[in-house]
Amino acid sequence: MALLDEDRLFPLEGRARDLARALYNEVRDLPILSPHGHTDPRWFAEDQPFPDPAQLFVTPDHYVFRMLCSQGIALADLGVPRVDGGPVEADGRKIWRLFAENYHLLRGTPSRLWLDHGFQHVFGIDRRLTAETADWYYDHIADCLARPEFRPRALFDRFGIEAIATTEPATDDLRWHRMIRESGWQGRVLTAYRPDGVIDPEMAGFAENVALMGEQTGFDTTTWAGYLDAHRARRAFFIEHGATSSDHGHASARTEDLPQEDAAALFEKALRGQFTTDEADAFRGHMLTEMARMSLEDGLVMQIHPGSRRNHSDQVLATFGRDKGFDIPGRTDYVAALRPLLNAVGMDPRLTVILFTLDETAYARELAPLAGVWPCLRLGPAWWFHDSAEGMRRFREMTTETAGFYNTVGFNDDTRAFCSIPARHDVARRVDCSYLATLVATGRLAEDEAPEVARDLTYGLAKRAYKL
Amino acid sequence: MALLDEDRLFPLEGRARDLARALYNEVRDLPILSPHGHTDPRWFAEDQPFPDPAQLFVTPDHYVFRMLCSQGIALADLGVPRVDGGPVEADGRKIWRLFAENYHLLRGTPSRLWLDHGFQHVFGIDRRLTAETADWYYDHIADCLARPEFRPRALFDRFGIEAIATTEPATDDLRWHRMIRESGWQGRVLTAYRPDGVIDPEMAGFAENVALMGEQTGFDTTTWAGYLDAHRARRAFFIEHGATSSDHGHASARTEDLPQEDAAALFEKALRGQFTTDEADAFRGHMLTEMARMSLEDGLVMQIHPGSRRNHSDQVLATFGRDKGFDIPGRTDYVAALRPLLNAVGMDPRLTVILFTLDETAYARELAPLAGVWPCLRLGPAWWFHDSAEGMRRFREMTTETAGFYNTVGFNDDTRAFCSIPARHDVARRVDCSYLATLVATGRLAEDEAPEVARDLTYGLAKRAYKL
Amino acid sequence: MALLDEDRLFPLEGRARDLARALYNEVRDLPILSPHGHTDPRWFAEDQPFPDPAQLFVTPDHYVFRMLCSQGIALADLGVPRVDGGPVEADGRKIWRLFAENYHLLRGTPSRLWLDHGFQHVFGIDRRLTAETADWYYDHIADCLARPEFRPRALFDRFGIEAIATTEPATDDLRWHRMIRESGWQGRVLTAYRPDGVIDPEMAGFAENVALMGEQTGFDTTTWAGYLDAHRARRAFFIEHGATSSDHGHASARTEDLPQEDAAALFEKALRGQFTTDEADAFRGHMLTEMARMSLEDGLVMQIHPGSRRNHSDQVLATFGRDKGFDIPGRTDYVAALRPLLNAVGMDPRLTVILFTLDETAYARELAPLAGVWPCLRLGPAWWFHDSAEGMRRFREMTTETAGFYNTVGFNDDTRAFCSIPARHDVARRVDCSYLATLVATGRLAEDEAPEVARDLTYGLAKRAYKL
Repeated sequence: MALLDEDRLFPLEGRARDLARALYNEVRDLPILSPHGHTDPRWFAEDQPFPDPAQLFVTPDHYVFRMLCSQGIALADLGVPRVDGGPVEADGRKIWRLFAENYHLLRGTPSRLWLDHGFQHVFGIDRRLTAETADWYYDHIADCLARPEFRPRALFDRFGIEAIATTEPATDDLRWHRMIRESGWQGRVLTAYRPDGVIDPEMAGFAENVALMGEQTGFDTTTWAGYLDAHRARRAFFIEHGATSSDHGHASARTEDLPQEDAAALFEKALRGQFTTDEADAFRGHMLTEMARMSLEDGLVMQIHPGSRRNHSDQVLATFGRDKGFDIPGRTDYVAALRPLLNAVGMDPRLTVILFTLDETAYARELAPLAGVWPCLRLGPAWWFHDSAEGMRRFREMTTETAGFYNTVGFNDDTRAFCSIPARHDVARRVDCSYLATLVATGRLAEDEAPEVARDLTYGLAKRAYKL
Repeated sequence: MALLDEDRLFPLEGRARDLARALYNEVRDLPILSPHGHTDPRWFAEDQPFPDPAQLFVTPDHYVFRMLCSQGIALADLGVPRVDGGPVEADGRKIWRLFAENYHLLRGTPSRLWLDHGFQHVFGIDRRLTAETADWYYDHIADCLARPEFRPRALFDRFGIEAIATTEPATDDLRWHRMIRESGWQGRVLTAYRPDGVIDPEMAGFAENVALMGEQTGFDTTTWAGYLDAHRARRAFFIEHGATSSDHGHASARTEDLPQEDAAALFEKALRGQFTTDEADAFRGHMLTEMARMSLEDGLVMQIHPGSRRNHSDQVLATFGRDKGFDIPGRTDYVAALRPLLNAVGMDPRLTVILFTLDETAYARELAPLAGVWPCLRLGPAWWFHDSAEGMRRFREMTTETAGFYNTVGFNDDTRAFCSIPARHDVARRVDCSYLATLVATGRLAEDEAPEVARDLTYGLAKRAYKL
Repeated sequence: MALLDEDRLFPLEGRARDLARALYNEVRDLPILSPHGHTDPRWFAEDQPFPDPAQLFVTPDHYVFRMLCSQGIALADLGVPRVDGGPVEADGRKIWRLFAENYHLLRGTPSRLWLDHGFQHVFGIDRRLTAETADWYYDHIADCLARPEFRPRALFDRFGIEAIATTEPATDDLRWHRMIRESGWQGRVLTAYRPDGVIDPEMAGFAENVALMGEQTGFDTTTWAGYLDAHRARRAFFIEHGATSSDHGHASARTEDLPQEDAAALFEKALRGQFTTDEADAFRGHMLTEMARMSLEDGLVMQIHPGSRRNHSDQVLATFGRDKGFDIPGRTDYVAALRPLLNAVGMDPRLTVILFTLDETAYARELAPLAGVWPCLRLGPAWWFHDSAEGMRRFREMTTETAGFYNTVGFNDDTRAFCSIPARHDVARRVDCSYLATLVATGRLAEDEAPEVARDLTYGLAKRAYKL
């Protein structure tokens, strides 16, 4: 029995199904470009085996453990580490059994599709994960992981990854990227410049991070001018390590273009830790415009990922820390928020700003109209909770008519779960081909134009937008 | 001629249609669980015949009379009673004719489907309602209503209702529920605890209601502690009369978890009628958290139904009172609003809080991400204006991928129109089976897993979530 | 090769496709009613040839030039005129080549469908527009334009237009409409009363416009009473020139029903140019209620088009002026906003207020519930960025179940691009017929009722709602 349907996610009606399958056959084997994600560069630097099946599939995957948590299973019982180092379940087999017993909770979710894809394609499994097959699964996967062809670099090659970007804080020493480069291995692993920790005055450690950035660059980051120069230097350092993009994860999409003296005054307050909530927000907003200006100088593509309300549970944050499934999307406005940045630099076609959203109501109302006219803007793919068959379909249906295809940038997997990378790209390719097939079958796209669009959505647009 | 298509609401493509029909055949005859609604318990207590066709189908159904009103037909001409007892149309046949002449206005609406279902399945009618057939219809239905097999209890049994919940204010004497129990009839009619009238300081009669609750329970409801004890006592009284849930219909989803002395101070202001709009709102929000704490003690499942902007027309409110079709949904935020309650008690898996919405933009953005991680949260079904084929489809498409099936609670009919109960459950079963069939046909759900999910969506989830 | 698929936009499944085609065949040749749009009445008054292909298809069409702009093509290179009269590209052939080279950018957009429709049906073209065919296209269209059968009046007749409304400011002299009438030509070209320039204190020239209205009418528009009388007189003047509707394009849907003395005080501030942002907004809101009262007197149908955030780029506004593709939709609330107007006059069925939105989240949540109960309200069709196959489908799916068909008003093309009129109406007819066919195929609409609904959506509803 195959875990996966060969024709999954294709349209049901015969002609559209045939068209989708034909388009998919054109793109299924194209290389994977993964220009935005959160895999660990250390995997590729050290190339050590993944520790055990639970550590590979359950413990690091917030999509999986949040669903189990929602039905009353404790995070500690899934091996999620405590910030105080206190005891959590360490027996991979026990974690795996708990996961298997509750695998039905994932019915109908993209995680189920990604997991089954990994089981079938990476580990050659042909039976369903259940309480009964849990131990067989565990043993089989553990056996595989001990073999050289399941080490990170081998999987990287097997997955057909042409380039993958990780994301590091502005003050990261990028040691793993250096180690990868010095190792002589040919896999292309890029970093991306994520300066939230030195831009957001409300983030713990802001002043220390800014001071560290001063040490790293030799600029006096107690001054506004020195702080900006330090950014320039760190961006250059990241570019040396392959970066082609920066990434910004603010709570809102607010931008500002303040007079330099006002920005300098806010920076001083930020360093002293004496600011109002609105001042912190204004500072973050202004820094997006500064980052855009630097992008015009150094060519980094700018990604804006706004709208997550982080750490909704105080108890989970205190016990397990950040990124534990308790980040919830909120409404996000783009029109007024982006106006200062756009009016400052947005007509310059040398700049690329890629917008993401967790608020699908913005697709047709704000994001497609914005990207459909401002030369610098492009739309990132359906993100996070919307990175699913229905989410991707809604993205195309609500953005294409106003923004077209060429103001989008292909797919991002954005994942921490390594085995989900080919699975996620496969879903995106199937959904995009199905969308194109439906357009052709309903007379909205010429049949001879569709294959080029399919290849652009799969490969060309990401390559060009992210300068890969 | 049948009024209804046997295969209505199923997918169009052949294989998906066959799968949907097969799933539907598994669940079509399962008993009806109706855990939330507004039928009148007096019907089942007294078991008197329904008065006439207009009183059964038109006058009490705000879905129907609001549509007629929208095209300029006066509510008084439809027999909707005036609050001052002034004259309105009393001739059932005249009302029925007016309804029949305008039946085309309901084309494409769920009301049309519910009405035709009642006509065909309850009254065995096989011709369409039009101006020409109006009198025939009236006579036929009136004849039926005079017969014993069309009395409320007989219909209850014929509809296959296993349990139905009504909704009563906290100060209700539950006489009809007592009468039902004492009658020896085996039909299971539960109440639900709806304390809005003793929680919302802005509702007319708040102080009197609180005083009455004191008399009913023997607690001193002029004090905060006594007021809380009175709630506990009334909840216990409702539980004695079958209640398994409470229900809360605030304008927003705001919750608060105030220090007890602050809550007590707000309560005192509320009793004196001296409070700001925000203080009233904060008090309502705090009381949701108190209700959640009591649920941990007594086991009542908590339902939150926010987001209706009530009584949009001053004139209709003054003339005809509340619940006359002029309640309009508004935007509703859940993420910040629910945080205080959730941080107080939300990680406790013994608690169940069922969230509803009139703002579909919250499904994928807020509600599914919340229910997909917080152990206490479940999603109620598509509600009110969204309780329709398209609305239910959107609910599944926008919640399943993040919340799965097992953080939802099956169907609620939420109706005042008795004959619409089997019709509404039938629509829900068809739409859910169609959704599942589409998942199977597109490789997103295994064919052998679908029947279990179909039975859970129809019966199992409601039974477990509402503790029926 | 045909540019267009004969069965475009129909459902894919066989039976639904057949039903859609049959319904479409019933309505495809019905006359075009275009009750709201922005064609230039001078075309029909003077009946001069359109100057060249670029002036017909590119330069005036903000859908087209905004997409080219979004990929870095300068508006000046597309011949968009500068406000200072400075040099822009004047060579139609060069503009056309640039357009043709970038025609792939429009793949998947409604503009592509409208353009191909115009090329095929108006100009008899059977080959695709590409860089290679650009010159052939240019020559062919230019040749046509020189012929009498391609003049505006000939095309008007050929398009089957029964009536078309243009939109003029309140102070317009309507000279072209007078010229049309006096010419003896039988084409029915109406105006519509657009008083934004004399209602919005924040619009440039407000006081001058109000003064001009005084001169035009003989009323003293320095007083509140005279200002209202001047409106009445201008409305009468517009009615003499065929107007059956007024049109209001405010940033929000806010209405107010202020005491007359407060309104008079705001008017005085507005005239003096001394007002806060909120006072300007309140004045606009109050004037909508005054306009509704005048509609009760003179019968003009009122259209409200809120929610556009105009002129997002300062640079484009300064260089090229308004309406240059940089108008971006924003969130729009209707429930609280419309309450004052509705409570003032909304229960009167003689009044018709047609609501539009750029915020699709309001369809199911606010607009359908409002139009489904208030006698005066009707829903305008999917508008602007949503005037597309997917947008129209979403409109029907999200409004029909609550508002039905008879609270909608048929299609508006709302265009400045003359050749797109038959194309847009054809898209609307196909999408509506496909929606109806899907309802029939899924048992939600009786097959014998569908043709009447199709004709109403195409013709009858517009005729009645707009009193044409």
